[in-house]
Amino acid sequence: MLVKERMNRIMEKASTDQLLITDPYAVYYLTGKWIFPGERFLGLLLKRGEEPVLFVNELFRFEEELGVKKAYYADTDDVISIVKKETEKNSPLGVDKILEAKFLLPMMEQNIASGFVLGSEAVDETRAVKDKAEQELMRKSSLVNDLAMEQFRYLLKDGITEKECAAQMLDIYRKLGASGYSFEPIAAFGKNAADPHHMPDDTVLQEGDIVLFDVGCVVDDYCSDMTRVFFWKKEPTEIQKEVYNLVRKANETAEEMLKPGLKLADVDKTARDIITAGGYGKDFTHRLGHFIGLQDHEKPDVSSTSEYISREGNVFSIEPGIYNPDAAGVRIEDLVLITEDGHEVLNHYPKDIEVLG
Amino acid sequence: MLVKERMNRIMEKASTDQLLITDPYAVYYLTGKWIFPGERFLGLLLKRGEEPVLFVNELFRFEEELGVKKAYYADTDDVISIVKKETEKNSPLGVDKILEAKFLLPMMEQNIASGFVLGSEAVDETRAVKDKAEQELMRKSSLVNDLAMEQFRYLLKDGITEKECAAQMLDIYRKLGASGYSFEPIAAFGKNAADPHHMPDDTVLQEGDIVLFDVGCVVDDYCSDMTRVFFWKKEPTEIQKEVYNLVRKANETAEEMLKPGLKLADVDKTARDIITAGGYGKDFTHRLGHFIGLQDHEKPDVSSTSEYISREGNVFSIEPGIYNPDAAGVRIEDLVLITEDGHEVLNHYPKDIEVLG
Repeated sequence: MLVKERMNRIMEKASTDQLLITDPYAVYYLTGKWIFPGERFLGLLLKRGEEPVLFVNELFRFEEELGVKKAYYADTDDVISIVKKETEKNSPLGVDKILEAKFLLPMMEQNIASGFVLGSEAVDETRAVKDKAEQELMRKSSLVNDLAMEQFRYLLKDGITEKECAAQMLDIYRKLGASGYSFEPIAAFGKNAADPHHMPDDTVLQEGDIVLFDVGCVVDDYCSDMTRVFFWKKEPTEIQKEVYNLVRKANETAEEMLKPGLKLADVDKTARDIITAGGYGKDFTHRLGHFIGLQDHEKPDVSSTSEYISREGNVFSIEPGIYNPDAAGVRIEDLVLITEDGHEVLNHYPKDIEVLG
Repeated sequence: MLVKERMNRIMEKASTDQLLITDPYAVYYLTGKWIFPGERFLGLLLKRGEEPVLFVNELFRFEEELGVKKAYYADTDDVISIVKKETEKNSPLGVDKILEAKFLLPMMEQNIASGFVLGSEAVDETRAVKDKAEQELMRKSSLVNDLAMEQFRYLLKDGITEKECAAQMLDIYRKLGASGYSFEPIAAFGKNAADPHHMPDDTVLQEGDIVLFDVGCVVDDYCSDMTRVFFWKKEPTEIQKEVYNLVRKANETAEEMLKPGLKLADVDKTARDIITAGGYGKDFTHRLGHFIGLQDHEKPDVSSTSEYISREGNVFSIEPGIYNPDAAGVRIEDLVLITEDGHEVLNHYPKDIEVLG
């Protein structure tokens, strides 16, 4: 049973004999069951050599057998004391990185374990290596994203705003078989492209604008994420071309080197050095990429401090960018899968300079 | 300045001299600035008698002056050590209830304060009392929700599935001026209505079905939330009528009693006693209601353990339900505002039994 194997892999990596997982995505990964408890407590307690226990509010009661013991609680129960019944008080507890203080501080007060350490790295490292079925779903999600990008360019027309443009993307994704966005789409026109996390606003498309689409969807629970940049109705200026080609070179050079056994900080450095050599180092203000799977942003990241060594089954983004309002804002992003002896770029939408309109 | 007043009110209630707020909604409430940092750290440090400090990843850099000191950090910085520069090491720190273990545990290790306690109750209590401008926005959001419910009933037709029905709601909300959902809408047909947190699936509408819509939207950043139940093409059976009328009586009786100075546990008890007296006590499996505002679920709740005393400006839901697959699944929910000497029900969609189709 797949799920059992995943739990075993996690406990092999875990530094504690008991691990409390509270992230709904990790709970799905380990049980095949989606439970989104909102502000209520959800926890999967893995104990070395014992049956896992799933703590669920009785509002989310379900029938399926998941190979875990179910421990239901009510809104009026003290859930911490219910968790305490199942933990080993004399042993440290690994906790999820997203466990909230409203649960963690009372757990400490009630001494449900002898100590508390961050424990979800073992989960993240397991999730970072996609199995064959997951790889296929990642391909599928990115294929839908490629097809959607092909349609998004036709949303552009004189007078349209970023918001109006972004508002039409969900329908396109759904018609292509996606269940929704993997994140709120970024549509940025002109100088807004030089803001890496711009949220679509009422900016109107103008002749000569750069158009940046950073978009992704969810297909069969797995996420895609891609960025492309277009030029509206005018050939790019020399400086826009320079910035575009520099980002493209950083993107492609980093992708081409990918294979198992690389330190990800070195991949970040390769892309960053190209942009720095081109004179825009200070305008590349973020990490090169992030892992992705059930969630748009998974661990680890591809940054200058990432000690992670690439392995077959990793899927992450390669997304260098230059954000210079005086020159141009450009980011080019693909998802890449690490294969047995190299890599596979999951996005196929072209990167040549395209003038639309 | 409104925002300054809110900070002062919070520090009056706070049990510590320093308070670290990390909830993006609370940060907006206190600064007027939306920052959604994803997995990255965002924090607003309030210190008694000193200028507040806002810790923001430089990816979200902004120009506006918010009356707070801005402390930017980069992805490659150790953000905890940057927070430590601003905290008082010999004094306890109140932390946000949603502060994640990945930040809290390192803060403890690096001793950025002499102790750590849950501190966001002071924020929640302040947010629980809506000022006049907020009250007006809550009215507006619920009015849009009323108008939307009027249209949602016309989505029903033979052969439609819950998912197809729910998928059309966003457009209706947007045309009415909402920016989006306040939560994913619940459309439940037949026995699915007896699952309080049912997610729309491929269930097809059948003659004789109960139809439950639990829906809400966001208008000018404020949330609405309402539940109504309809009957499709057939008069309800005697037992369905009994359940419906019992829930309605619980809903209306609880609403009628509302005014400042009530313990909310007593309001929950009033509704629960009615349902219990009718023989369905065990099928009312959740709290009577929750506060609401910038977020769909705010603190405190309206439950059997809620010691909170109602005050002018509170807005919360009154949503009794009976979930009995053999009898019926029915929930009726309004938002209610506590006024100077009574209350105002913010939803106006009727509660008479309606047979559609």
